[in-house]
Amino acid sequence: MPLETSEKSIKYTSKKIELQILKKLENLGINIYDEINKKHFPSIELPSRSTTNIIYNPKIRQYVLGDKKIFRSARNIRHLRPFAQLLWLATFAKELILTDKTSTLRDAFYNALGFGIDFKDQAESDDTIMDLEALLNTSRENFHVFPEERSSVFGPLIVEFTTKGYEGRRLDLTSIPDGAMIGPSMAKAEFIKCKAKMVLVVEKGAVYQRFLEEKAHEKFKAILIHTAGQAPRATRHFIRRLNHELHLPIYIFTDADVFGMHIASVLIYGSALAAHITELNIPDALWAGVYASDIERYKLPAMKLSNIDIKRLKELEKDPRYQKDPWKKEINVFWKHQKKAELEAFSRYGLPFIVNEFLPERLAEIERK
Amino acid sequence: MPLETSEKSIKYTSKKIELQILKKLENLGINIYDEINKKHFPSIELPSRSTTNIIYNPKIRQYVLGDKKIFRSARNIRHLRPFAQLLWLATFAKELILTDKTSTLRDAFYNALGFGIDFKDQAESDDTIMDLEALLNTSRENFHVFPEERSSVFGPLIVEFTTKGYEGRRLDLTSIPDGAMIGPSMAKAEFIKCKAKMVLVVEKGAVYQRFLEEKAHEKFKAILIHTAGQAPRATRHFIRRLNHELHLPIYIFTDADVFGMHIASVLIYGSALAAHITELNIPDALWAGVYASDIERYKLPAMKLSNIDIKRLKELEKDPRYQKDPWKKEINVFWKHQKKAELEAFSRYGLPFIVNEFLPERLAEIERK
Repeated sequence: MPLETSEKSIKYTSKKIELQILKKLENLGINIYDEINKKHFPSIELPSRSTTNIIYNPKIRQYVLGDKKIFRSARNIRHLRPFAQLLWLATFAKELILTDKTSTLRDAFYNALGFGIDFKDQAESDDTIMDLEALLNTSRENFHVFPEERSSVFGPLIVEFTTKGYEGRRLDLTSIPDGAMIGPSMAKAEFIKCKAKMVLVVEKGAVYQRFLEEKAHEKFKAILIHTAGQAPRATRHFIRRLNHELHLPIYIFTDADVFGMHIASVLIYGSALAAHITELNIPDALWAGVYASDIERYKLPAMKLSNIDIKRLKELEKDPRYQKDPWKKEINVFWKHQKKAELEAFSRYGLPFIVNEFLPERLAEIERK
Repeated sequence: MPLETSEKSIKYTSKKIELQILKKLENLGINIYDEINKKHFPSIELPSRSTTNIIYNPKIRQYVLGDKKIFRSARNIRHLRPFAQLLWLATFAKELILTDKTSTLRDAFYNALGFGIDFKDQAESDDTIMDLEALLNTSRENFHVFPEERSSVFGPLIVEFTTKGYEGRRLDLTSIPDGAMIGPSMAKAEFIKCKAKMVLVVEKGAVYQRFLEEKAHEKFKAILIHTAGQAPRATRHFIRRLNHELHLPIYIFTDADVFGMHIASVLIYGSALAAHITELNIPDALWAGVYASDIERYKLPAMKLSNIDIKRLKELEKDPRYQKDPWKKEINVFWKHQKKAELEAFSRYGLPFIVNEFLPERLAEIERK
């Protein structure tokens, strides 16, 4: 039983995190049993995730929860249902960790149905899982609830898997030409040996493939990551680990449009929705383009901003994450030219251009700043 | 230069296919030069992909093109534009093969823009690429135009990569716990050693992960494939190769809804849109559930059919691919109960149920037939 193992004797970081979560879950259970034994109604206090309690902290450059708490007591008939739902999910999380299995938000919902836990729909069980995250102050991936994997990684890094049945197995991340998926096992693998000097993150599969084929990993001694649009949280955590554990600079490349800019900003500053988790953001990562201003500069094929783009742009203008450059400056360029372009647009100068011309230019510019 | 290499001396199947395509492209060029040298206007004849020329062939159980041809001549001013566009894409395809680089439909469009090729939008360049497929009688993946990768594979199979820079490198597909992506390199890797007895294909990432964790690959000696919804063509081709080259039976698992049923049917019989390509379908693959009739049988949590489901169901009823069982029977069950369910719904009986109970039952039933 992991609970009887001392933290020191555990080899893998991911297992240490799990042990900490198991201890928190155990304490949660002990407190409830204690209250019942004392003939009290058991209760739980957890940070409120309501929008009025989500505040942007400019010092640590991310959204966080304020001091408001919510209180759920078995004494209150209206609390009883969410109280029991939360406890059932805590049990489910414990089982997942102890059996080293993973689940998804959807699977958790169906599993709950089978146990007669009365969630009216998946939205309700998703929300309760976020309560559990807030209560444990950890992201659900740490108690094995994962999104569908779709991101991928390639580069000069050797990892060691810690998943049950694969402990100690190593993988050189240059050995699979298409890259390796960032699934549950990759997300918590240990970093063993790294020859990389930087991480290049791209939102588009086609550009990732271009980076692979033009050997950006060799030319820039880089680990390449494909987020596949808005990065799944397991991928955000993985990139954060590359930054924190290996001290690698992170450069993010997105489309020169409002949504691309936001993909970069969520990676860096986090989202309001995940303000209850502080282990996903990468405040030192840098957005490296494609900027709105690159459209003119590189004469990229561009499209007119749509009404949706314009609406979104107005929202971002008011967002605290966009009050400084390069964000502020690039928003102004969007307003001025009303144009957007994709990363693939560099292909107008031939397929190798983005790696052989654009990348060195941009990285040198960032270096000089 | 590959064109000077004899086919026999080439080790890899994928390279042989590329050599055949290069020869076809060379002949296309020679014919056009010949016509010009004879002072004729050059022309191209290719199979028509118009809907009136798409017919279902019940004998080979797939959609194919009929005998209608289209003719494009440089003599006709209206033909000149598509004629030149097609020739430019033929050159682009040749370059991709010769440099062993891959591209996407979108990249091809931008690259064309850079060369001053006048495509009015990406839809037009996509369509011309399909003309090139029809002309060469091959799918675009064979001339290195790939979709964004998102499928994944795991199981007792050792592959050898043939991609430039990775020739001869082998990968055991059980060495990455999350599975390996089916990208351009995996799609054309050679199969070296296989201990599998079957292939289990699932549309959902969560269920794929369940199969991995419950060790379906060991219990059933199976290669596991995650299509991530409607299978990308590279994945369809990969599964077809597992069936044709390794003679493995293919079992497909989808949601018990109209769209899930269609994912299975496209894998098996192909789509009308790709009637000009005959190397993607897997007519011997079997749809193994979840059937509409499984909803009652296993008492699965189910939802009511939506209006979109009902509209789609009416379309499928008339589709030649759905005139036999199990399709016909299951369509009738959908009409009767008006309910749909997801693969994850089995989680109501605990996470291991789908692998430990449902799978052996279903495979035994199919075996008995």
